[in-house]
Amino acid sequence: MFFHKQELQFQATPDQPDAVYGRKLQEVLGGQYGEITVAMQYMFQGWNMHVPGKYRDLVFGIGSEEFGHVEMLATMIAQLLEKAPLGVTEDAVQADPTVAAVVGGTDVQHAIVAGAGARPVDSMGNPWQGNYVTASGNLLADFTSNANAEMQGRTQVSRLYHMTDDAGVRELLSFLLARDTMHQNQWLAAAAELREQGTEQLPVPSNFPQNSEHTPVSYQYQNFSDGDAASDGPWASGPTPDGNGTFSYHDGPTTSAPMPPPTHPHSRLYGTTN
Amino acid sequence: MFFHKQELQFQATPDQPDAVYGRKLQEVLGGQYGEITVAMQYMFQGWNMHVPGKYRDLVFGIGSEEFGHVEMLATMIAQLLEKAPLGVTEDAVQADPTVAAVVGGTDVQHAIVAGAGARPVDSMGNPWQGNYVTASGNLLADFTSNANAEMQGRTQVSRLYHMTDDAGVRELLSFLLARDTMHQNQWLAAAAELREQGTEQLPVPSNFPQNSEHTPVSYQYQNFSDGDAASDGPWASGPTPDGNGTFSYHDGPTTSAPMPPPTHPHSRLYGTTN
Amino acid sequence: MFFHKQELQFQATPDQPDAVYGRKLQEVLGGQYGEITVAMQYMFQGWNMHVPGKYRDLVFGIGSEEFGHVEMLATMIAQLLEKAPLGVTEDAVQADPTVAAVVGGTDVQHAIVAGAGARPVDSMGNPWQGNYVTASGNLLADFTSNANAEMQGRTQVSRLYHMTDDAGVRELLSFLLARDTMHQNQWLAAAAELREQGTEQLPVPSNFPQNSEHTPVSYQYQNFSDGDAASDGPWASGPTPDGNGTFSYHDGPTTSAPMPPPTHPHSRLYGTTN
Amino acid sequence: MFFHKQELQFQATPDQPDAVYGRKLQEVLGGQYGEITVAMQYMFQGWNMHVPGKYRDLVFGIGSEEFGHVEMLATMIAQLLEKAPLGVTEDAVQADPTVAAVVGGTDVQHAIVAGAGARPVDSMGNPWQGNYVTASGNLLADFTSNANAEMQGRTQVSRLYHMTDDAGVRELLSFLLARDTMHQNQWLAAAAELREQGTEQLPVPSNFPQNSEHTPVSYQYQNFSDGDAASDGPWASGPTPDGNGTFSYHDGPTTSAPMPPPTHPHSRLYGTTN
Amino acid sequence: MFFHKQELQFQATPDQPDAVYGRKLQEVLGGQYGEITVAMQYMFQGWNMHVPGKYRDLVFGIGSEEFGHVEMLATMIAQLLEKAPLGVTEDAVQADPTVAAVVGGTDVQHAIVAGAGARPVDSMGNPWQGNYVTASGNLLADFTSNANAEMQGRTQVSRLYHMTDDAGVRELLSFLLARDTMHQNQWLAAAAELREQGTEQLPVPSNFPQNSEHTPVSYQYQNFSDGDAASDGPWASGPTPDGNGTFSYHDGPTTSAPMPPPTHPHSRLYGTTN
Amino acid sequence: MFFHKQELQFQATPDQPDAVYGRKLQEVLGGQYGEITVAMQYMFQGWNMHVPGKYRDLVFGIGSEEFGHVEMLATMIAQLLEKAPLGVTEDAVQADPTVAAVVGGTDVQHAIVAGAGARPVDSMGNPWQGNYVTASGNLLADFTSNANAEMQGRTQVSRLYHMTDDAGVRELLSFLLARDTMHQNQWLAAAAELREQGTEQLPVPSNFPQNSEHTPVSYQYQNFSDGDAASDGPWASGPTPDGNGTFSYHDGPTTSAPMPPPTHPHSRLYGTTN
Ligand SMILES: [Ca+2]
Ligand SMILES: [Ca+2]
Ligand SMILES: [Ca+2]
Ligand SMILES: [Ca+2]
Ligand SMILES: [Ca+2]
Ligand SMILES: [Ca+2]
Repeated sequence: MFFHKQELQFQATPDQPDAVYGRKLQEVLGGQYGEITVAMQYMFQGWNMHVPGKYRDLVFGIGSEEFGHVEMLATMIAQLLEKAPLGVTEDAVQADPTVAAVVGGTDVQHAIVAGAGARPVDSMGNPWQGNYVTASGNLLADFTSNANAEMQGRTQVSRLYHMTDDAGVRELLSFLLARDTMHQNQWLAAAAELREQGTEQLPVPSNFPQNSEHTPVSYQYQNFSDGDAASDGPWASGPTPDGNGTFSYHDGPTTSAPMPPPTHPHSRLYGTTN
Repeated sequence: MFFHKQELQFQATPDQPDAVYGRKLQEVLGGQYGEITVAMQYMFQGWNMHVPGKYRDLVFGIGSEEFGHVEMLATMIAQLLEKAPLGVTEDAVQADPTVAAVVGGTDVQHAIVAGAGARPVDSMGNPWQGNYVTASGNLLADFTSNANAEMQGRTQVSRLYHMTDDAGVRELLSFLLARDTMHQNQWLAAAAELREQGTEQLPVPSNFPQNSEHTPVSYQYQNFSDGDAASDGPWASGPTPDGNGTFSYHDGPTTSAPMPPPTHPHSRLYGTTN
Repeated sequence: MFFHKQELQFQATPDQPDAVYGRKLQEVLGGQYGEITVAMQYMFQGWNMHVPGKYRDLVFGIGSEEFGHVEMLATMIAQLLEKAPLGVTEDAVQADPTVAAVVGGTDVQHAIVAGAGARPVDSMGNPWQGNYVTASGNLLADFTSNANAEMQGRTQVSRLYHMTDDAGVRELLSFLLARDTMHQNQWLAAAAELREQGTEQLPVPSNFPQNSEHTPVSYQYQNFSDGDAASDGPWASGPTPDGNGTFSYHDGPTTSAPMPPPTHPHSRLYGTTN
Repeated sequence: MFFHKQELQFQATPDQPDAVYGRKLQEVLGGQYGEITVAMQYMFQGWNMHVPGKYRDLVFGIGSEEFGHVEMLATMIAQLLEKAPLGVTEDAVQADPTVAAVVGGTDVQHAIVAGAGARPVDSMGNPWQGNYVTASGNLLADFTSNANAEMQGRTQVSRLYHMTDDAGVRELLSFLLARDTMHQNQWLAAAAELREQGTEQLPVPSNFPQNSEHTPVSYQYQNFSDGDAASDGPWASGPTPDGNGTFSYHDGPTTSAPMPPPTHPHSRLYGTTN
Repeated sequence: MFFHKQELQFQATPDQPDAVYGRKLQEVLGGQYGEITVAMQYMFQGWNMHVPGKYRDLVFGIGSEEFGHVEMLATMIAQLLEKAPLGVTEDAVQADPTVAAVVGGTDVQHAIVAGAGARPVDSMGNPWQGNYVTASGNLLADFTSNANAEMQGRTQVSRLYHMTDDAGVRELLSFLLARDTMHQNQWLAAAAELREQGTEQLPVPSNFPQNSEHTPVSYQYQNFSDGDAASDGPWASGPTPDGNGTFSYHDGPTTSAPMPPPTHPHSRLYGTTN
Repeated sequence: MFFHKQELQFQATPDQPDAVYGRKLQEVLGGQYGEITVAMQYMFQGWNMHVPGKYRDLVFGIGSEEFGHVEMLATMIAQLLEKAPLGVTEDAVQADPTVAAVVGGTDVQHAIVAGAGARPVDSMGNPWQGNYVTASGNLLADFTSNANAEMQGRTQVSRLYHMTDDAGVRELLSFLLARDTMHQNQWLAAAAELREQGTEQLPVPSNFPQNSEHTPVSYQYQNFSDGDAASDGPWASGPTPDGNGTFSYHDGPTTSAPMPPPTHPHSRLYGTTN
């Protein structure tokens, strides 16, 4: 169950409205790596988890916080939109570049559809999608997905930080950046513990019998492009991170097979055949 | 430029057709973590990369291989579909449960739309989408995304391995599993090198000035759920993976702010106001 | 069957082109609550309806009108786009803010894809989707959906009315507003009749045996947020609109149950378990 | 802010697993009218609301409850999937119609992608979308949308109730049905109050000056289909629900205008012109 | 304007219900090449057309017919669904393979969402999308798109014809096949006339000055795969269909350029640079 | 298998950055008729093809080239974005219309999400979709689809050519235009050969027994709009392109059938019935 408290985790008020920036901020609300994604992702990981205890508490504990981040951003965006110009009206002239420019940079559905409200979409107006959520039940895979989400998210907030000089907005962003720092560290710490305790190891999933894979190619770097600089990397020689092998470098594939002949499905599918 | 060779990297022929399985295999061809995703993701990372040399060779070298994996899976699926029953016909009866069951389990567009051919969709028929691709320009974030993609992908192939007993299909899967093993290891090795050499560090993006974030909460675990087991994890005390702080545990938020009052946008937006 | 007449229901000619406004007008053509939605929604309700007679005549009678509204808007948009600037060309300079501003505010696919033509998309360029259509077969639910669609639509048109001072555009909008007024009234009248005649009643669906629901909570307001002002509303005490109960107010849930233990699916799904 | 409690609002445990039913239940979790939709819709209405007090408390109070409904359904689905057959394996034969049938009826991503976990998708595997959310800022429109959502949702749950005979599942559904009953009544009571107090009236939006619409057609039923039974309805004569007019019935349009001539955009758009 | 007549263009009644087939038939109602697509495509081509007269009459004349095809298919599907089993109920057993098989093969939203009604989706449940519509304003391009749509559509109907032995269904399909035959011929005749009269010629768009293209490669077959059989085709030698050149065959590219160096965007975008 | 060479097929470097144009260019990279579409479409046609030899070599030979076109456009776009303004920063003022205008015209995800990199999306930010790919197995239908794709694509590139005066960009476009010219000609030549050799003929699919269609209407123009100019076209009289019939013109439908009565599905679906 969820209980809502009519307070925010941090202040979320801009010094002044800015509808163009409000549209950009939608990215970290309703984009692929926005707050809706991490909120839903962590909760679904919890609901699907197969172990009780600290890992489940972890995803529930943070997932709920993320819904509060959704709230702070939605609240901020509504305020940024508060004084958005309606666009060209009987009182204004089409030719005024300032007004037109601002209109050009806004999410026009903010005005037309939401009446100056936030929406569950990204900065280009694409609706948030359920397939942004990753919850496979394999915790090492999923915590790596979480670390990636927090890295992508913090990178986006960093970029947004420099696209405004509004002190109120920046204050909220500085809070979100700090929480992203925490969450990056947290997921990496959790992933490391999974490996250290042998709960899950590399390669993921570690309990699939590795002798059922075609092991001759399990640690081969096969180069399908004509640059050879990649032969110098730590992925081209030396021991592998999973501790099970040694990297080797190969210029091109080490195996090949003839293409099977074309298929001939039922004639009633009316494909072209010879 | 890309050059195509009419050979496969590995044999991809089933012992016998199986249209139900062909539909399942679509997941790792055209799903969120399928081969189209990694092929496109690595190439876009290369095209957007800001450094020449080994990292760009790496994404180009592997990205091209992944297009060959797309080809092996498409070829395999076409063969699995080769003898798919058309469904209920004048010769068959609706009541035959075997035929009806098989039809129920297939992607019916395989027959109706593609005439027994593979399609760029997932196992539930959702078309592949460009937003499955992550390429932010920040290499530590992106290589973490790549590691996640290979972990999710290998987990899916492992699950698919046990959903068939066709030796030909399993042989292809054993090859893909081995390559996923390689690629997981490779991205983790590359991410580690980025951190070791200081090219990119935690928290990502590491060149954002961390004193611009709200540092009091940068390493706090704040628990928004009522389970307390998460206080025992390595994310609740001790040094943080980024080396910049120490984790602490807090039951609930450590900051709060009043909700700002409701906004009052222009009356011509016709929202309800008091 | 449908027959097309090469006349419009009302004049739809702008005083002058305005590509920025043409993009905004896409919302009520191809947006979630645009004319394509209501046209398709009413016709699908008709095709799926289980009763002959006046209700089916009603949805067919209005649905066909709505296709004509699609046509008026498409015709209007094509004219608004007629003189759209091509954007920066060899004759113009990038630095001219007026041109750039106009380009910024347009749907660039209007020019690149449609050659100055209307498109079945919304004002942010999202394609119209079949799932905008609601047709459940339950008429009280569906007529409530229709009333909502006409309310949202009229609100959007009202907003658009003030974003232009073009008399020709406003004339068309004044017509659409009037028809939305009619259709709002019409669906509410039809919904009221369904209830008065007992064809369908509250709660929808009224022929589901209400004693199969968990009746102790059927009329309880349970407050999951910490504001208490909602205790003063007509939903917190007094008789319920369905005539079957009395509202009561509760601060929080009145029932609870322990979370079931984590699931343990087959080990071959390679989730992390203890 | 949101706080999570590791208890459910009601018991959510099936008597036995049933993966086919688990897929169907996704509709009311992640479908257009599922619990994610109402949870997000009510919260966004709150964050965008322009009035403080009881209406905002109302949407916050119920929105938070709905997130708990998401949780109950996700928990239920994970349990229904717990013993899902993997599909055809080395131990089973393709020809076994029971196994194949069950596989045919499942969401195959439940197994391949989520490892027997719930997902934010509908019963056909379409991801939940942000544009399912309606939050216009006009409360009469939005509460009508809410009433519709609860009607469609309760209708779907009613249908699902008869697609299982599992007592545990039915118990959860009986609870959700009761809450849907409450919420239908609640939104209708709130909408009625808005009208009674004049906060918002018909036609929505009521503060748009109705004399700016083309009033001659504001209350005309215009019949664009050849059935005439609709002339008998309460939408064809008598006073209108908004109290501002009288319905009249017309066989076909009462206005018409010639189609404007084809447009002639810039020749560099390379359309075909004469 | 559109006027609806409550008659069908042809009989559309199945001999008996068949919910599995009803789902398949959705493909040609709401799929990429279904009737909604051609109806909307032809009408949008008309609304966007830059020439009056016969071509506009043509798209309007056929587009309206296609809406009637949508209606026939929706009506047929509703009847096919009329007696669909509800799935597993208290009266049936999970183990009955016939019932389960049928459920597996249905669109479960047909029952849960639409109450045994047709929906604007394809046979895998993907909603119809506005971007299925092609209307570029260039008539030779668009009529070629139309010819393709009718070819793909007739191929799909042909496949569907053999997936049922229901005489009523086949009768409707035989009508749709005949109309597809007409429409294929019609668009090809119209495209040929455009070329013969010089209204539009190859290459499309023919009024773009061809000397502005890089003419050395305008008629070169460049082979990027290692099969050489394509050197025998009419695209590898001889005059070109546009009458402007002669085909030549080349094994690989005839031009190349070095890759430009990596970009170095602003440091505040926090990408990884050297 | 695919092999990548770190060279481009043609130079792809702009004279100067132009982020607004970079966004427009996304259309022919990741739009419906962009290079990703033709690359994937031709390869899937190859993988699904039922005949060996020249047609398969043809689709493989060109499909691989198209992936190189994707690369040239992605490379070009990254360079166009290299110096994109970040938008409003502490150093700039909101009121500067030039900066704001440019921001308004950009894809804001280019900066926020991709850090000045290209993305697999169209010019309005819609992600590329797998359902843009047509590969039916019927070669005459598919080659017609290919011809359409190259016509739409060349039309879009032509339009884009005039939206810039950057010589470097235009040079790349002139190359793409030439290749589109080749590919249009090639697909039409291939389609003609299929018909001449009788491999596939009109109407597509030609091996469906035409006497199974309702032949009385196979060559009838039926006019559902009130313009009569279409009676003058080559589709209204004379021999049909398939050589099997003669066109005739009819004002309206030549057949009709009564609408079937409404359906009465199971009462437990809770639709409204009489
Ligand atoms: Ca966050
Ligand atoms: Ca791979
Ligand atoms: Ca309307
Ligand atoms: Ca609920
Ligand atoms: Ca048709
Ligand atoms: Ca190309």
